[in-house]
Amino acid sequence: MVIHTYQIRLHDTDAAGVIYFASILRIAHEVFERFMGDSGLELGQLLDTVPYLLPIVHAEADFIAPIKLGLRLHVQFSIKKVGVSSFTTRYEFMAPTGQRVATAELVHAAIDRPSGLKTTLPEPLVQALKPHLEV
Amino acid sequence: MVIHTYQIRLHDTDAAGVIYFASILRIAHEVFERFMGDSGLELGQLLDTVPYLLPIVHAEADFIAPIKLGLRLHVQFSIKKVGVSSFTTRYEFMAPTGQRVATAELVHAAIDRPSGLKTTLPEPLVQALKPHLEV
Amino acid sequence: MVIHTYQIRLHDTDAAGVIYFASILRIAHEVFERFMGDSGLELGQLLDTVPYLLPIVHAEADFIAPIKLGLRLHVQFSIKKVGVSSFTTRYEFMAPTGQRVATAELVHAAIDRPSGLKTTLPEPLVQALKPHLEV
Amino acid sequence: MVIHTYQIRLHDTDAAGVIYFASILRIAHEVFERFMGDSGLELGQLLDTVPYLLPIVHAEADFIAPIKLGLRLHVQFSIKKVGVSSFTTRYEFMAPTGQRVATAELVHAAIDRPSGLKTTLPEPLVQALKPHLEV
Repeated sequence: MVIHTYQIRLHDTDAAGVIYFASILRIAHEVFERFMGDSGLELGQLLDTVPYLLPIVHAEADFIAPIKLGLRLHVQFSIKKVGVSSFTTRYEFMAPTGQRVATAELVHAAIDRPSGLKTTLPEPLVQALKPHLEV
Repeated sequence: MVIHTYQIRLHDTDAAGVIYFASILRIAHEVFERFMGDSGLELGQLLDTVPYLLPIVHAEADFIAPIKLGLRLHVQFSIKKVGVSSFTTRYEFMAPTGQRVATAELVHAAIDRPSGLKTTLPEPLVQALKPHLEV
Repeated sequence: MVIHTYQIRLHDTDAAGVIYFASILRIAHEVFERFMGDSGLELGQLLDTVPYLLPIVHAEADFIAPIKLGLRLHVQFSIKKVGVSSFTTRYEFMAPTGQRVATAELVHAAIDRPSGLKTTLPEPLVQALKPHLEV
Repeated sequence: MVIHTYQIRLHDTDAAGVIYFASILRIAHEVFERFMGDSGLELGQLLDTVPYLLPIVHAEADFIAPIKLGLRLHVQFSIKKVGVSSFTTRYEFMAPTGQRVATAELVHAAIDRPSGLKTTLPEPLVQALKPHLEV
């Protein structure tokens, strides 16, 4: 598990006064990007240098309590599953009080760029993901 | 079932060359807003006039095929479930070829604004939703 | 001049209850994309087929009156200037009452993709823009 | 002058492979929100507690060089002008090489919430802004 922080910005909110729901999934992906960068696998570099993509094939989120402008979220990031050609990341969003306010899961597949077909997860990625597998 | 159309805009895409995954959930919600407007329940008016909110408590999406800039989506909107205090909307995104490229579901709960607690779905909303229930 | 319409969606707004300022520039660009499509110059096709890009080198917007969720904007699109290697588009956002609520301008430059340098505006683009030049 | 950092995320980019232009204005506003928080004027708290709003009445940005996914921007934040009822913030975006890749300016007005009319800038805000005035 890795913990990141994120403070809710005006852009994340909507006229109902709280977070716009899809923003939580964008924030989850930002946490994933930070994790990848910390693992030596910056997405920007991957796009330029490797023959695979890691598109999201499934995304979901649950909303438990209102998330207001300025709230400082603690995001617990973990890996739920590492499969042959896909992996599942999990995000728990906690308020400073410790209350869980939302959760999210993203499933990424490894796609071979030339063919557009599923491919096995590259070994450096598997090595980066495995230490964070939930037990 | 109601069918809406949406053409993928530059803002919806990312540097991987296709739709940014969370955009599909935003597009789903735009279709919901159009449905509500067509049903005489404009979200902007509701925010100003009714004592309830309809926040999303669960959202999910599946991605089946790449969705590129400029693609004209046909979005089939239907109601999957109408419960006591929540309802589930479903979205099927089709390419002009008829291929299904993505699906999404959003679960909205009715929340009493003064108390912040769940409340029963307002009758005008139930009347708007029921004709579009999947069978 | 071409007139497009756009209804403000929840995603466009923020917790202050009105449009998030940068959304007006995104909406302007969506109007530009519609104009280009109507002119036979779909951005998605251009990206795949032509050796130039049309990045924005300057953007600005003025906000005159609050823009609320659900407001149906009429967007007057015109061309302010066609230069050698750049052009300026202009957007006037009107409420249904006729009140002007915001304006925006976007300056696009033509960039040769192989070299990354400025290039002359392609002739088909000039032909599409000129009929909409302000007088 | 205050320097903040921001790394370009996938969500900030578009299918042309670089930053979506309006993202630079959103990033500018995030830097403003951080500045306000550091000054004891969190936007989320202001929305709940003060009788004024600080909407943007003018926004502009210039783009000097391509901004790619993963780029770590240094953002130099300064105050260009403090007027009676409005103020202008300025943002210079630098690559790690020191190259200036974009600039932005945002003009905020102080609006009295009950009346919706312009009002004088609150004194605590003036005190927070003045030390960062450009000379």
